[in-house]
Order: sequence, then C-alpha cells, then structure tokens
Amino acid sequence: MIETPYLLFLGDAPDMLAAKVAIGIRDWRPDHAVGQIRLEGCGADLGLTDMTLAEAKEAGAKTLVIGVANRGGVISAAWKEVLVQALEMGYDIASGLHNLLRDEGDLVAAAQTHGGTLHDVRVPTVGYPIANGVNRTGKRCLAVGTDCSVGKMYTALAMDAEMQQRGLKSTFRATGQTGILITGHGVPLDAVVADFMAGAVEYLTPNNDDDHWDMIEGQGSLFHISYSGVTMALVHGGQPDALILCHEPTREHMRGLPGFTLPSLEQLRDTALPLAQKSNPACKVVGISVNTQHLSEDEAVTYLAQVEEKMGLPAVDPYRHGAGRLVDALAAI
Amino acid sequence: MIETPYLLFLGDAPDMLAAKVAIGIRDWRPDHAVGQIRLEGCGADLGLTDMTLAEAKEAGAKTLVIGVANRGGVISAAWKEVLVQALEMGYDIASGLHNLLRDEGDLVAAAQTHGGTLHDVRVPTVGYPIANGVNRTGKRCLAVGTDCSVGKMYTALAMDAEMQQRGLKSTFRATGQTGILITGHGVPLDAVVADFMAGAVEYLTPNNDDDHWDMIEGQGSLFHISYSGVTMALVHGGQPDALILCHEPTREHMRGLPGFTLPSLEQLRDTALPLAQKSNPACKVVGISVNTQHLSEDEAVTYLAQVEEKMGLPAVDPYRHGAGRLVDALAAI
Repeated sequence: MIETPYLLFLGDAPDMLAAKVAIGIRDWRPDHAVGQIRLEGCGADLGLTDMTLAEAKEAGAKTLVIGVANRGGVISAAWKEVLVQALEMGYDIASGLHNLLRDEGDLVAAAQTHGGTLHDVRVPTVGYPIANGVNRTGKRCLAVGTDCSVGKMYTALAMDAEMQQRGLKSTFRATGQTGILITGHGVPLDAVVADFMAGAVEYLTPNNDDDHWDMIEGQGSLFHISYSGVTMALVHGGQPDALILCHEPTREHMRGLPGFTLPSLEQLRDTALPLAQKSNPACKVVGISVNTQHLSEDEAVTYLAQVEEKMGLPAVDPYRHGAGRLVDALAAI
Repeated sequence: MIETPYLLFLGDAPDMLAAKVAIGIRDWRPDHAVGQIRLEGCGADLGLTDMTLAEAKEAGAKTLVIGVANRGGVISAAWKEVLVQALEMGYDIASGLHNLLRDEGDLVAAAQTHGGTLHDVRVPTVGYPIANGVNRTGKRCLAVGTDCSVGKMYTALAMDAEMQQRGLKSTFRATGQTGILITGHGVPLDAVVADFMAGAVEYLTPNNDDDHWDMIEGQGSLFHISYSGVTMALVHGGQPDALILCHEPTREHMRGLPGFTLPSLEQLRDTALPLAQKSNPACKVVGISVNTQHLSEDEAVTYLAQVEEKMGLPAVDPYRHGAGRLVDALAAI
C-alpha cells in the first residue's frame, strides 16, 4: 500500500509519451496528486501546479512517485539529488522503473536514516498462495485482449469510474506497475513466480459484498506466445463472472511478434470463455471494448456498429464514448 | 549442468515412496548412478550397491544427489554430517528439496572451502529471455495432461528411451526438479518469473537437427486452475510439432481441487491443439498416454481399446506396454 497523496516527479522527461504513469494518475486518481515536480529541460507538463518538495510536503504529500520512464536505464545524478532530498524530508518514494530503487545504495541509506519506504512496484512483496479455486463471494470482471497493449487497463479503469459515478460498488484491481502506481496497491503479476500466479490473482480479488465488482486489469493475451501464461493465470485465478473482449483493429501483427496475426474477436471469445468457465461456470462475455485511436470518428462509429452486429454484444470505445454501455451490460448479469 | 556420475543419497527415507527422485534416476539413467548411500533406519532400497562416500568417490562419483524427500521440511543433523563430509571429500551436492542447500550456512561454508557446488535445482540459475516465437529447426513433442501428475514426465522419458533404442535422435527436456536431477539439466519452470516462462521453454528447446526430437516434459494442465499458466507457457514456448494427451482414468477430481472435474480427452485435444497451433501451425495430436496403474490388465486393455476407437489415435500405457506405438506415431509426422 503506497501512502497518498503523491507529488508526481516528471524529472527531465523529453515529452508527454515518457510520462505515461503520471498521466494515468492525473486522469484516474486526480485526488492522489497534489502537484508535479520537474527538472530543468523537462518536456512534459501535466497541467498540475509545479511545486518544490517543501511546498508539496506542506500540501500534505506523503510519497514522491516517479511518473516517468528514465533514459538509458540509469537513475541519473540529477534525479538522485531530488530523490535523496525527498527522503531526507520524510517522503516515501514509489517507482515502476526496471532499475530498482533498492539497488541504489544512496537511496537505501537515506531511506534507512530517515525512516522512509522505497516502493519498487515491479517487485512482489507478498508471499502469494497457490490458487485453490474455492468460490468467492462478490463479482469480478476481467478484460481480455486479442493482443497486448490494446486498452485492457484503460477499459477496467473506465468501467470502475463509471461504477463509482453511479454509486455502485466497484474496485479497480491493478495487475501491472502503472495500475499499481495509479491506485496505490495491486499485484505486479508479470514478476510473480510461475507457481503462484493464479494464487496472486485470487489474493488480489478476495471475498466481497454480493453486489461488489472487482474490475480486474488484464495482462498479455491468450494468443500472445510470450505472455499467454500470465493471461491464463488471470482467467483462472480471477474467477470472472464477466469478460470484456478488448481489441485494436489496425494492428498488423501481435505486438513484438512479426508474422503472428491477431485472432478475431470470435476466436478470442471461443477460447477465453470456456477456459474462464472452468473457474466460474456462470461466466459470460458481456461486451467489447475497441481502441479506435487510429480511426476517425466516422470510421470508429461504423466499425463499432459492425462489431456490435457481428458479435451481438455492446461494442464501445470507452475513451471516445464512455464505458456506460459496458457497465449497463454488467448490471444485466 | 550437474556433473555425473552420482552417488544416490537415500538418508533415512521411511519407504520407497519417499525415494521417488532416486528411483527415477535408477530407472531412466542407470549409468548416472554408481551406487546408493543410506543412513541407519532407511526403509528404501534401490537394489544398487551400498557404498560409503569414499568407495563411491573411488568408483568415480562426482555428485551426491539427494534422492529422497526430507521429513518435516528440515535438513536434519544426521543428513548434515554426510553432506558436509561429502563436500570435504570434493563432491558437489544436488537437491530438489524445498529447503535450499544454499540457505544452510554450514553447507555453504564447506562448499566454499573445498570448491564444491551446491545445486538447488528448484531455483533457476539462468536469466531467461522473453519468448520471441521465432521458428526453430528440429522437432518437438510435448505431453499435455487432463490433470497434474498423470504421467507426463514418465511418457516423455519412455518415448525418449524408445527413440534412443531405435538409434533415433532425441533429447528429454526436463521442466521440473525430478526430471532435472534425472538428466542433470533442464528448467525448473514452476519457479521461473511469469514474464520469462515461455522464453525459458524456448531456451530449453533450441534449434536442432531436422530429424532430432525434443521430448518436452509437461507441467500442470490447461484445465488445472492453480498451474494452467505454466502449461500455457509450455504450449506456446515449446512450439510443439506433436502433442501427446495424457490421462489417468480413475481420478475423481482435479488434483488438489475437490469439486473440479477432469476434462474429457476430447476437451483436452480441442483446447490444447488450437493453442499449440498458434506457435506451430503444423502441430498435431499424435497419440494418447493413459496411466492405468489403478486398473487390472484386462481393464487396462479394454479401456485403451475404447479410447483408441473413440479418439482415432494410438492409446497406450507406456509403463505397461511400452512407448513404441507413440514413437511410431511421431515417425509418421
């Protein structure tokens, strides 16, 4: 559990693309961020108040969150200066970087001296159990994709936000480092040891109120040969009542795998549903989420109508048109 | 790579059941074992020559292999005495125990002093890559099961032995600790970090001669909710040309999961084959391996004939009747 609120560290990010994590926090948990802190030459701007460490501390910030990717895989001297100073002032630091905070001697020393915590959210901190498949109370929705990076996290976050807005019970369950930094908790599933993957998902989505929905962030794809095992653990450990199929219609091959074509939405449905029903016989596919960012508005509307007709399920782009119809579909279960 | 030949340590094993690893080595790699060493009260006997550490050393033994499960999850003082002495005499030690050799200070000290290696085969020692799905030369056969512990390792070992006997090119590829101790190398797949599972399988089964077969040891089951992610990584990372379906017909529920029924062989075929064809479009299901240990000879023969008729594929119990017909089926690809 990462303490909120945050001060978002943008460092010397060359552009907004590098600030994906910070953007996610601003968009989905604006109450978590008191402001941003930037170094000389920073090309990213979240539109939040620029603050010094002292100002943000005054405003209540508990954790400095590294909201940006680092260049060359090194935590630079310029970054270090701010990070050490933050620890000296009593901040915790949270990071999803590949290079771990805990591997930096000066950060570890400063954290120990001043009682701060270094959160490396890529690294599991819990000894997860082996999955037992026992039926859990409450309901769960899982986003599964025809490929990696097609909008599964966005879909789950958007559905969760819509549920909250309607006053319904919902929790977004993060399974990757961006989602964990956004919400402050979760399981970094791709870093869990194989035997405990499905158990980690069970741990993440425990018993709950009968009318409560967990919106589980998907990972990978059952059709992506590099990561399909992780997806499988979500399908079985997540015990989903509802599946949302996620798709990006302009992709020419599976991400990072030239020569591997994407499955159709029908293939995804016919593969994922029987597997999910092994852990929850009542599971249904309830809707389709399409990432239409590379289509014009007209193309998007036409494409979504075609998919909806073909699949007999609501098909929306939650970024363009909201997640309302997907949440309606959950309510109908 | 564990240095052979071995001296097999049976400790104070209460019975033969506890000596599963040693039995596997004796049965499948008899040339790897110069003899056995037992403590007072040992109830297991492999029928190998009982030797002292000195006698086995004289006979060429390089590694003391712990061929037995330990009681209560503790490496006892009685065991320690032998293990330390072995290190002092220049042995390496190999173990698949849950408690690691490397966590025992006295063993680490003795190994360092005398230049010995401690092999904890449950722990990956390689930084495996992320799977890339690139087509590899050579052929691969993967055993997949309706459940865990239905005979997948046995099937792959028996097929490998039959190939060797026919003078054909084959390598058994171990993916679990027993298999690794038997052959001296492999990948402890259930201990690999999620993101690298499929890549570890690719690493294990590299390019090879066009007429060479890797016989890949299966793990878990696509239908076992605790471990299905590991199986998925084998199906995709293994890039199999041939699948063998493995089954145990008397099991009442999935292993360790009361209330979860086993899939039929048809369901296994229809689930595993399309997934495998994602990584190798030419993949075929070529045969069925049934563990008939709980059936009489008559029952077994009748059952196998029924399965063969129903599935249109050779169905054998390789333990009872040999793996010849399964190897014939590979040759027909």
